[in-house]
Formats: sequence, structure tokens, C-alpha cells
Amino acid sequence: MKQISTAILGATGYTGSELIRLISSHPQLNIVHLGAHSQAGKPAGEVLPGLGDELANMPLLASDAAFADDVELVFTALPHGAAANSVKKALDAGCRVVDLSADFRHQSASTYSEAYGQVHPFPELLNEAVFGLSEYARARISKTRLVANPGCYPTCTLLPLLPLLKAGVIDTSHIIADAKSGTSGAGRSAKTDLLYCEVNEGVRAYGLPRHRHAWEMEEWGKAFSGSSLTVQFVPHILPMTRGMLVTLHLSGENPESWHDLLTTAYANEPFVRVLAKDVMPSSKGVNGSNRCDIGMSVTGKNSAVVVACIDNLIKGAAGQAVQNANIMLGFDETLGLSLQAMWP
Amino acid sequence: MKQISTAILGATGYTGSELIRLISSHPQLNIVHLGAHSQAGKPAGEVLPGLGDELANMPLLASDAAFADDVELVFTALPHGAAANSVKKALDAGCRVVDLSADFRHQSASTYSEAYGQVHPFPELLNEAVFGLSEYARARISKTRLVANPGCYPTCTLLPLLPLLKAGVIDTSHIIADAKSGTSGAGRSAKTDLLYCEVNEGVRAYGLPRHRHAWEMEEWGKAFSGSSLTVQFVPHILPMTRGMLVTLHLSGENPESWHDLLTTAYANEPFVRVLAKDVMPSSKGVNGSNRCDIGMSVTGKNSAVVVACIDNLIKGAAGQAVQNANIMLGFDETLGLSLQAMWP
Amino acid sequence: MKQISTAILGATGYTGSELIRLISSHPQLNIVHLGAHSQAGKPAGEVLPGLGDELANMPLLASDAAFADDVELVFTALPHGAAANSVKKALDAGCRVVDLSADFRHQSASTYSEAYGQVHPFPELLNEAVFGLSEYARARISKTRLVANPGCYPTCTLLPLLPLLKAGVIDTSHIIADAKSGTSGAGRSAKTDLLYCEVNEGVRAYGLPRHRHAWEMEEWGKAFSGSSLTVQFVPHILPMTRGMLVTLHLSGENPESWHDLLTTAYANEPFVRVLAKDVMPSSKGVNGSNRCDIGMSVTGKNSAVVVACIDNLIKGAAGQAVQNANIMLGFDETLGLSLQAMWP
Amino acid sequence: MKQISTAILGATGYTGSELIRLISSHPQLNIVHLGAHSQAGKPAGEVLPGLGDELANMPLLASDAAFADDVELVFTALPHGAAANSVKKALDAGCRVVDLSADFRHQSASTYSEAYGQVHPFPELLNEAVFGLSEYARARISKTRLVANPGCYPTCTLLPLLPLLKAGVIDTSHIIADAKSGTSGAGRSAKTDLLYCEVNEGVRAYGLPRHRHAWEMEEWGKAFSGSSLTVQFVPHILPMTRGMLVTLHLSGENPESWHDLLTTAYANEPFVRVLAKDVMPSSKGVNGSNRCDIGMSVTGKNSAVVVACIDNLIKGAAGQAVQNANIMLGFDETLGLSLQAMWP
Repeated sequence: MKQISTAILGATGYTGSELIRLISSHPQLNIVHLGAHSQAGKPAGEVLPGLGDELANMPLLASDAAFADDVELVFTALPHGAAANSVKKALDAGCRVVDLSADFRHQSASTYSEAYGQVHPFPELLNEAVFGLSEYARARISKTRLVANPGCYPTCTLLPLLPLLKAGVIDTSHIIADAKSGTSGAGRSAKTDLLYCEVNEGVRAYGLPRHRHAWEMEEWGKAFSGSSLTVQFVPHILPMTRGMLVTLHLSGENPESWHDLLTTAYANEPFVRVLAKDVMPSSKGVNGSNRCDIGMSVTGKNSAVVVACIDNLIKGAAGQAVQNANIMLGFDETLGLSLQAMWP
Repeated sequence: MKQISTAILGATGYTGSELIRLISSHPQLNIVHLGAHSQAGKPAGEVLPGLGDELANMPLLASDAAFADDVELVFTALPHGAAANSVKKALDAGCRVVDLSADFRHQSASTYSEAYGQVHPFPELLNEAVFGLSEYARARISKTRLVANPGCYPTCTLLPLLPLLKAGVIDTSHIIADAKSGTSGAGRSAKTDLLYCEVNEGVRAYGLPRHRHAWEMEEWGKAFSGSSLTVQFVPHILPMTRGMLVTLHLSGENPESWHDLLTTAYANEPFVRVLAKDVMPSSKGVNGSNRCDIGMSVTGKNSAVVVACIDNLIKGAAGQAVQNANIMLGFDETLGLSLQAMWP
Repeated sequence: MKQISTAILGATGYTGSELIRLISSHPQLNIVHLGAHSQAGKPAGEVLPGLGDELANMPLLASDAAFADDVELVFTALPHGAAANSVKKALDAGCRVVDLSADFRHQSASTYSEAYGQVHPFPELLNEAVFGLSEYARARISKTRLVANPGCYPTCTLLPLLPLLKAGVIDTSHIIADAKSGTSGAGRSAKTDLLYCEVNEGVRAYGLPRHRHAWEMEEWGKAFSGSSLTVQFVPHILPMTRGMLVTLHLSGENPESWHDLLTTAYANEPFVRVLAKDVMPSSKGVNGSNRCDIGMSVTGKNSAVVVACIDNLIKGAAGQAVQNANIMLGFDETLGLSLQAMWP
Repeated sequence: MKQISTAILGATGYTGSELIRLISSHPQLNIVHLGAHSQAGKPAGEVLPGLGDELANMPLLASDAAFADDVELVFTALPHGAAANSVKKALDAGCRVVDLSADFRHQSASTYSEAYGQVHPFPELLNEAVFGLSEYARARISKTRLVANPGCYPTCTLLPLLPLLKAGVIDTSHIIADAKSGTSGAGRSAKTDLLYCEVNEGVRAYGLPRHRHAWEMEEWGKAFSGSSLTVQFVPHILPMTRGMLVTLHLSGENPESWHDLLTTAYANEPFVRVLAKDVMPSSKGVNGSNRCDIGMSVTGKNSAVVVACIDNLIKGAAGQAVQNANIMLGFDETLGLSLQAMWP
């Protein structure tokens, strides 16, 4: 089978680590370079204790060195701001790119500036980049050389929301998305408030009054459905490593009919599953898989609760990135991606 | 100092265990009996490994045997349904009672039936019982012989909500209370879905479409504020033992003014603390204490998020029960209760 | 590629769940039946929330119904005692069997009785069964129809111990194996002491004075090395779902030379990795993989500490079972098994 | 009641935080200064979210400013090396000191240098300092102005070991102490390997080949018992915030008689409890208390396992420090210290 030479930049973060795991068992992607600027020179296994033998011995490269002539596909799992430069270089070197940062997720440089507080260095690339919510952008992904992989929160919010938005059944003026995330979403930086003893046995809200991902939800909710929306998005950090659950508190007409809308929308999707009415998913039920599980319950004549779960590092990051790479390269979309969670 | 002879029924559950811990260090309450029907005859320490020497050796009694002549005060930490009978016997024996079950929390037998699906055995006691949200019911508590200790969720929802309800500034037609709780709130029964391996690394919503505590929130929100309200209450179970956080998504006029309302309402309360604007509390910051910490952030011209945290077993159960006993007995309300959390 | 029709009995326990996950992505094993006596009739996904679509809809069968004519390979993940009967029936039906219980791990019925306190129902099968510590029994496994898959503790103890035992360098009269295990090793039964709130934030020793797995370690330590040994084995249960770490405290001659013995022994083993001197493995580094990571440190002129880690549900159970099935069926031994841990 | 003006230096670490909690409810100690060099100027509550109102508003001082004229008692919870200077200044200012660092735990400057790799700045104070293993040093503590509070591991190892050492029944040439600790023992510094996602779901050994606390165990084991000993001490870090368990693997004569030795030794000790034979303590059973729980099981004709548990931040640090202050000041030794664990 044809092998695509692949580089991963930002390989030693949590998303990078998950990319390595998934791609190492992908039948048509072949890891040739691991980039990790600050750790360059070390064998990857010294920084990533989970790696098995061959990959453990692969030397980490400075990011610039990681896309030599032989690389066809690059995954960039770098902080926003830093990612844009590497993406530009990779494109210039002729690579296809799946960028897991926020740098190419917005259609306009001004929205990017508003959300991230900095000027976009390559606004000319924004039109070319395709926002890779896989289930809603297959045609465009298959034709691009640059996929902007969605954020974990927007993925877990838009998947349950879009069928209802498109059907025009919900009040879009005040959508509540109350999100709960495992701590790996905050990344692998040595900050006091991410220490085990500070996170364990506690839950807290953060990112108020407006988290960056709210812009992404509103922009792409509108782009994919045609209708404007306002999302009050409040994320919480939980004492777990992986897993994400978004609770949507929705108002609208005839909520009893919404379950059918969701079921129909995702009937043929391999990675989105709608549970029976009033059955609530657990984030644990999707850990280790690329699945999004959705449940809903009607709570009043004009109100309902819709709950969605993903593994934040897989469908919320590395898994969707591989799914997008599969689409971009013309492979079976499920290649190398698990439908089964690791449970318990 | 005068010592009040105290019995604890349901001593071997999680709430019972916390009652023992708090009361054992209370300067004016003296534990004379521990009731635990199914474990009667065993020394308490065999079932509760955290107990120190004297209490560890105290024999567990059948519930009926636990309020002999010498008992003045009884805490009942029994399942709803079972609690009512013990409460009745304790009152008949001349004891004061703080009941931690749901059996006396509603003013009418019909609401009780609606929420709990069973007929109330002693409806004549409902009028006499005082709903013990301490900060809002001191006068009545000080004169009663029966306090119905509030549920953990209603406590953590009503404390941040009541100042705003009373001021009439929020839209009461659709209040969203998205709650997150540690697993101890589910009690100490051997159920598969409470096993370590099922709870760890996962979060899930439960109790939909309408959890029993929604009735309690709506009934007492109205009783204490004068205005009707509808609460969409969605609880979630989290991988932590203790701790509760309620996120209120609220709409209304001039939310910029709400922080002052909260601050003023609780300026002199020892157990309720309002943090500076946009500072969010962590449930970890109140674990081990009887405190409720409240934070808020304005999210739009007509919307705000208010977050409250308690230790579900203390301010949400055993601690508020002791606070109520202090009020009922004319003691300093803070006696035996900690202002300091155990952190980390 | 040839597909082997496979049944899993005891499919709804934690080991069964992991077998399903591994086998569902195995290129040559095909799940045709899932047995779960007490849950027969339900779709598997109702009991195992992590299952993806097709498998989620597969009906659970009574164990007896699970090996019909079409089944070639059976994995039995049943409690000891119960497993033996199913194994007998499966063999009589012409299946190959990998039994994950303890029922066929001992060479004599009397040792079995001593360790498990019950009479063995089919002692005539004990000679035929092959103890499947894969790295040490390949030749016999490839020729048998019944593999007795080793216990998690014996696997994690014997792998680091055997190279030293075989070299005759350690004092075999008093080997200390201090083991730490995630809670999934205790199974999925609804017991109070396995509840989240009882396990979280605590560690305890259990199984004293002599845990059943001590017999297994001593019997197979001797069988594979030729020298008798006495193991003081003390297991501890930890607040984590998966993962196992065994700390061996060893005495003997010239411990500086032992690292070479370990390195040489496992130089060509895909699933056993010996780390550099004084580098200690973390159980987290092998979670999700079939790897065993080994570290050692010389602590005195005649003493050393050797530490080994496995995922108790993979190399300690389901993964090694698949590895053994691969050997038995003549497949590449690593088929369907991951070298990469899921980290974090 | 007489109030002792008390300062806490290093107030914002985990041990400092626990000191504040314990002392704030101590009836005769009164916190007047909180020192935290790097955070000086901030209100304490900004750094320690668990603090209640008054203490939350107390400004953090630079360490030097924290023992003004009015301070009688100082607790130093600073890193070793840094602590010595503050201790010296506090003594010169006429304060009594309980030092929780390692700086005054050794009787000779050369042992200190060997264990900590640095020269001791005030060797002349080493003779004066009293090693505060409370149960074994009451007379000397009551007469000193400087207590060197023991390390958590030595406390949890020496308490179960000393009665057996003193009786001369165990083989002292190779004592195995396999220790398991919650992560708070590693302190509150922002290091990658202490992040939630690195610690959760994993266990690892560290400090090999010889951890600093081994010197402390051997020196004070000999000093208190009269017999030399060699300890092979291997600590492990566990995914829990608090709690410590030490498993002693011991050889010697007539282990059946050891349980009596332990029981007799601690019959009248308020903070040390010996459980019935073969009953194993859980670290969870002592969390939040100043208790040490000890269990033992005879594993062979000449061998036994003795297990001890403490809360590493209480009996292993802040609690024993308060116990020592009580002894030093002539108070009831149990003042301000809990016998009851917080369970669950």
C-alpha cells in the first residue's frame, strides 16, 4: 500500500503524543520526522514515556528541520501564533498540512485578532484554509492543501447543534453551551494551576466572560447552517485527563421532534452516534475512540437538553486531524481510527 | 459547658460519617448513640475506617434503639421514606431533630408525592418542619423542634440565586442551573455505576428530564423571594469524591449591578463569600469547610454567569445540619464548623 | 485474509471489554459471539458503553449458546470455578481456547485446591493446558488447544525475575515482590469497597498473609528457570483504573551485572523493554499497550531494586491472551497489539 | 486562655497551607504573620484559595519581616537550605521554632552534607535541635527552643519499626521499606512531571538508588533503639493528593509475637493505633487526621509484613509540627489536632 511520508511538529505535547500513537498504527501514513523545537536532539522516548521502541529512538528535530524534501504531509500541533510560520513553510515546501492550532480557523484576520489578540501573519492563507469539521466539510477538505482542524470545544458543540440549527427549530439568540473538559486540553506546560494537587478533587469554570472558542462556534455554526447564533459558552476544567462533555441548554419549537433530526442527520456517520431518547452519554464511553456520542432529553414544552461527548485529544484534536488527512488524501475516512473506546 | 446528648441515625453512610467527624469536635454536642440498622452490633470503626479510637469502639445500634431517654438531639441521615418514621419516633420521644433526608423538605404532601413518587406518611408534620437553608430561615429554625435540612443541590443553587431573585432583576421564566457534583452525593450503596472504574475519567449528566431537587429549588426559591421561578436543573456526576459546583446561566436587566447585590446580601455571613468580579471559585477551595464561595461574570448586555461552590457533604449536608442545630439550640452559629478548607 | 471466528465469554467484565476492543481491530480475528450469562438478551452496548455501533448492537448470549458450530476460537474471561465448565464445553466442541481465569494455570489439582480452596473439576485437562507466559512458552503454545493465560501479577513479576532466576544470581529464599495495581484488577462486581469514594485518595495492602498469585509465581518461576524460589508477594490497590507496577527487592551476587542479563534476555522481544540503568518506568507509560517496561537500580553491594510495569488489562490479561492466540494460530505475534501506550 | 503569637514561613506551599488550617482552629495558637517571600504583598487568599475570610485577607510578608518583636513561635516550612537562615534569625529574635525542613534533622553536619549535597551553614545549632518524632522525644522537645520536624517517610517508617527494633527481634541488616505517597509530598512547584495529566492513572518509583530520607531513618532508628540498621527505602508517587503508606518487609525471630510488641508500645498513644492482626489499614482512613494506623500480618516462619499509614501533610508534616509545638509549650499534646479522618 502506498505510504505517505508524514511529519509531526509539536510532537511532545499531549496532542502531538496522540498524533504519534494514531499515525503509528495507520496503514498508509508513515512517520518520518518528529519536530519539537525545545527538545531537539533528544530521542523522542525520553520526553514521551509511552512510545514503543522504534519511535522511542527517533530523534526529535528542530521544527524547521522537520519537513525536508521527503515529507508529503505535515501535522502541526503547535501553539497558536507559532503554528502559522511552520504552516507557511510546510506549504511552501509543497506539503499538505493539517494544522491543529487556531491560526487558520477563522475566515477573516479581524475575527482572529479579536479572539486571539494578535495580528495574523498570513491573512492571504485564510481563504485557502478549510475548517475541518469533517462531517460538514468533506468536499472542500478533499480539495485543499491546508486543513484548519477545529478546536475541541467547537467540535463537541457544533456536532450536536448543527442539525438543529439547520432545521431552524431552536432559538438562536441565546444558546447555552456548558462544557466540561479533562485537563489534557490545557496542554503540557508546567503551570501551578495544572499541578495534580490543584486539579484533583476540584472543578472550576474558566475563560469567562468569553472564551476564544465562542468566536469559532458562532462563525462556523452560521457558516454551516446559514443562520446567525449567539453562544454563551462556559468551559469547566475537571479532574480527569481525557474526555469532554458539552451540555446544551436549548429553547425552541416542538423539542419532541428534535431527536429525529439528530438521528437522521447522523444515521450514516461512522463517528457520530445518537443514543436513544433520554439516554445520556458518558465522556468515559468515548475515551480512546474518535466517536462523538449524543444524547437528548426534552425538559419542557419549549426546552431540551442535548449532551455530546468526545475524547478531547481524539475527535477533539488528533483523531479528527487523521480523519481530515484521510479525506484530503482520498483514503477511507475511518482508516487508523478506532470506533471502540478504551473502557474502563 | 453544657453538653447536648446527640444521636446520629444512618451513621455509616457518607453523610453520617461526616456528621460524626464534625460533631466529635463540636464543643457542646456529645455523641451518645450511633444508629445503623443493617450493621447493628458491630463497632463503628469496623464500618467507618476513618474513626479514631473511642468512636471506633462505639457499638452501632439498631435505629429504634438509638434514641433512648437520654438523647436530646437526633440527626437522621437515612434514605427518604425510611427517615420519616425515625423522625416521628424521635419527636415523640421528645427529641429535637435535624432530618437530612428529603422527607420534610416540602410544604405539601402532594409536592412530596410528585417529586418522590410515594405518599407522605406524616403530612401533619410538614407544617411544623422548617426548611433549614440557614441564612434564610434563622428565626423559624430557632423556634422549631424539626429542621428539614436542604438538599445539596438546592443549597448550592439557592444561595447564589436568592439575592437576585429578591431584587427582581432576573428573568425567572427559564433559569438554567447546570450542576457538577462529586460522587459521594450518590451515597454509599454498592451499585455498578458507582464503582471506581466506572466513575474515574468520566463525566455524565443524570436525573433528566427532571431531577427531584428541581421541585425543592422552585418551592423555596419562591418562598424566600416571593417570586415564582422555573429552573432547568441538570446535574452531572464527576470523578471526585467531594465537592459541588453550580453554574447559573441567567438573563435579566443590567447584570453589571448584580455583583453588588450578591456582595451586599452576604457581607455579614460567616459561611458565604462572594469573590471579586470575574474571579471564579473552585470546588476544591471549599472542600472540608462549611463555606459557599460565589463568583460571577457578566457575559452580555443582558446575561451573566453566577457560579457557586460547596462541599456537598458539609454545607450541602452535615455542616449545614450542625449550623442548624447551633441555631436551634441558641449556640453561636459557627460552633464546630470550619471556615478553612482542606487544601490541597 | 483468513478470518478466525471468535467467541468471547464473560464479555461484559473489564477483561471481556478489553478483549472486545483488541479483537475488534485484529485483522484476522472476527467476533461472532459475545457471552454474558447474567445479561443474556441485551444488546452488548447497553452494558458496555464504550462499544461502537456494530458491536454495540450484537446481542449478548448465554454462555452455553456462545460456541456454536461456527466458532473456532474461544476466549473465556469468567471467574475461576465457572470458567472450567465453559472451557471443557468449548474444547469438546472442537474450539481452541484461551482461558483467562485461574482454572488451568496450575500443573497439579492439589496446588489449585491449595490456592483456590476448591476441588478441580477436570484435573485431566491440567497436563494439556499450557501456561501462556508468551515469552517463555512459545513452542508449547503453538501446539496446544488450551492456553491458561497467566495472572496479571505473575506476568508482571516473572518477566523481570526470570532472566535473573535463570542466571542463578539472586538469593531465591526470600524474594520480595511489592505490587501496586489499578482497581480494574478487582473486577466489575458491585462491592462497597470498590466504590469510587472508597478507592479514591487511598492506598491499601490486601490479600495477606498469602495471595493466590504467590503459588502461580513460585510454580512457574521454578518451571521456567529450574530453581525453586520463595516469593513474599504483597499486592496493593491504588486509585487508578489501569496499570500495574511490581517492585522487586532482590539480594544476590554482583548486582551491577544484572542489568546486562535483563537487556540481553529481552533484546529481541517486541513487548518487553528494559530501560537504561537507574531509569524507572511509570505504569502510565504502558497503559493501552501490550508492553512490559522494566527498570533497575543497584541499591547496595548485594542488593538491587527491579521494577516492572504493565497495563493489567492488556499484557496482564486481554493483550497477552491475544498474543497467545496469535502464537497458537501461527500468526505474527504482534498482530492487533499496540506497542504505543495511550499517553496521557 | 493564653494565646501564643505565631508566624508561619513558607505559608503558601502545601505544608504551609496545612499549618494555617490547623493553627487557625488551635485554641492557644494565634497566627500573626504569614511569610511567603516570592508572593510578598499579596493577600494570602489570592494564593491559597481554601482560606476563609480573615486569613484570606492577611497580607503575605517577605520572610524576614515575618518575625517581628511580637512573635513567640515560628513554623518554617521552607525548602532545605533556605530554611536554615530563617531558623537562625528566628532563634536570634528569641522565638521558639519548629522547622519542617530537613536542615536540622541530622546530628552531624557531615551526614547532612552526604544526604543533601551541601555544606551546613550553622553546624553549631545541630546539637541543640531536637528531632521531633513526638512519641519518642517528648522530654527533649519540652526543653528545647528548636524542633527539627521529621520527614514524612521517616515518620511513617519509624513508628511501626521502632517497637520491633527496640525489642531486638528483627534482622536489622536488610530492612525493606516500600513506600507509597500522595503527590502533595512533592511540593507545589510547577514541574512538568507533577502535572495532573502526568500523575493521574500512573505510579512510579523514584529517588533510587538512595533517597535522602534513608539517612534520616537509619540515624534515628539507631538513636531511638540503640541498634544499627540498614534500610532499603524505595518511595513511589501515587495518583492521590494526600496519604502515605509504608510497607515494611521484615525478617526475624518469632514474628507471631510482634503484634503484641506493637500493641503494647502504642497502647496509650493518642495518635498511633495498632489494628487487629491481619487487618490492613488504608491511607484513606487517616486523611485529615494526625493518626498513624498500623497493621501487620505474619507471612512466614521468620517473616512478616508491617504496614503503616499517615496523612503525609499532617502526621507527616504540619500535624506533627503542631503536636511538637504543644509539647514544647506545655500544652495538652492533642490540642488542635483531629483524631477523626475526613472519610470519604
